[in-house]
Amino acid sequence: MKHTLVALVENKPGVLNRVASMFRRRNFNIDSLSVGTTESNQVSRMTIVVEGDEQTVDQAVKQMYKLVNVIQVTDVTRLPTVNRELALIKVATTSETRGEIMQLVDVYRANIIDVAMDSMVIQITGEEDKVDSIIRLLRQFGIKELARTGRVSMMRGVAE
Amino acid sequence: MKHTLVALVENKPGVLNRVASMFRRRNFNIDSLSVGTTESNQVSRMTIVVEGDEQTVDQAVKQMYKLVNVIQVTDVTRLPTVNRELALIKVATTSETRGEIMQLVDVYRANIIDVAMDSMVIQITGEEDKVDSIIRLLRQFGIKELARTGRVSMMRGVAE
Repeated sequence: MKHTLVALVENKPGVLNRVASMFRRRNFNIDSLSVGTTESNQVSRMTIVVEGDEQTVDQAVKQMYKLVNVIQVTDVTRLPTVNRELALIKVATTSETRGEIMQLVDVYRANIIDVAMDSMVIQITGEEDKVDSIIRLLRQFGIKELARTGRVSMMRGVAE
Repeated sequence: MKHTLVALVENKPGVLNRVASMFRRRNFNIDSLSVGTTESNQVSRMTIVVEGDEQTVDQAVKQMYKLVNVIQVTDVTRLPTVNRELALIKVATTSETRGEIMQLVDVYRANIIDVAMDSMVIQITGEEDKVDSIIRLLRQFGIKELARTGRVSMMRGVAE
């Protein structure tokens, strides 16, 4: 089962290396990982998606806490969260297919952010299955390049 | 100067660890990193933003090529690219501030993806300075949580 871990770490050289090493030693394959800054310059936030059973992931979380510069780790898999991903998709176009592709972009509320003679770059944001779905539909035209950020997750606010 | 590296790597356990180790040994601090899948199950794509002068980053690129499972590395810093980032921002709200925040969200073409009694989660996609700018404006209301994916970059198509 895929687990999503959110970790707050100190923004210091070596912390990504320590986290990646730990997952490597425990033989996890990391599905996606994104690291960015937070409101504090001192702190970065990682979202890590890994495959594993409850117990193994639980052990990994405990191991993470032992790493230098790791502040907090939460397995948000079963918690109420919003999950989003950004993808850039470079799709082959011809004068015949351009219109059809633009219709798809409209339906998915995606955006065209670059246009060339024989390709377009489409930007889409959403949950993974929405991103997967537009990719599947664009495949028929020929996907030349694809870059996905991987998931970022955030706990929903308390509704009261 | 900040450099953006785009790397294609085999989707195998350990590759992220090898890349992170190499940057660690060379004492780079990674500003942001995102790893996601591509059209091929076998291949992942990383976008890495690091600080460093031309020569040091050039050496790091050469070192990356020597790592097992690294297929291709491009320093796209000076190439024509589109660059995007996704951020989720949980901002504190009251009945007094909610309207003002929603106006900001409109102006930035951001989206509200979760609403609670005392907070909202705002999703924004764009170049980093757009993301930075809405964060600066939201700060006055109180940012409770912030998750950024880090940059993904893609070369523009050839205009002909």
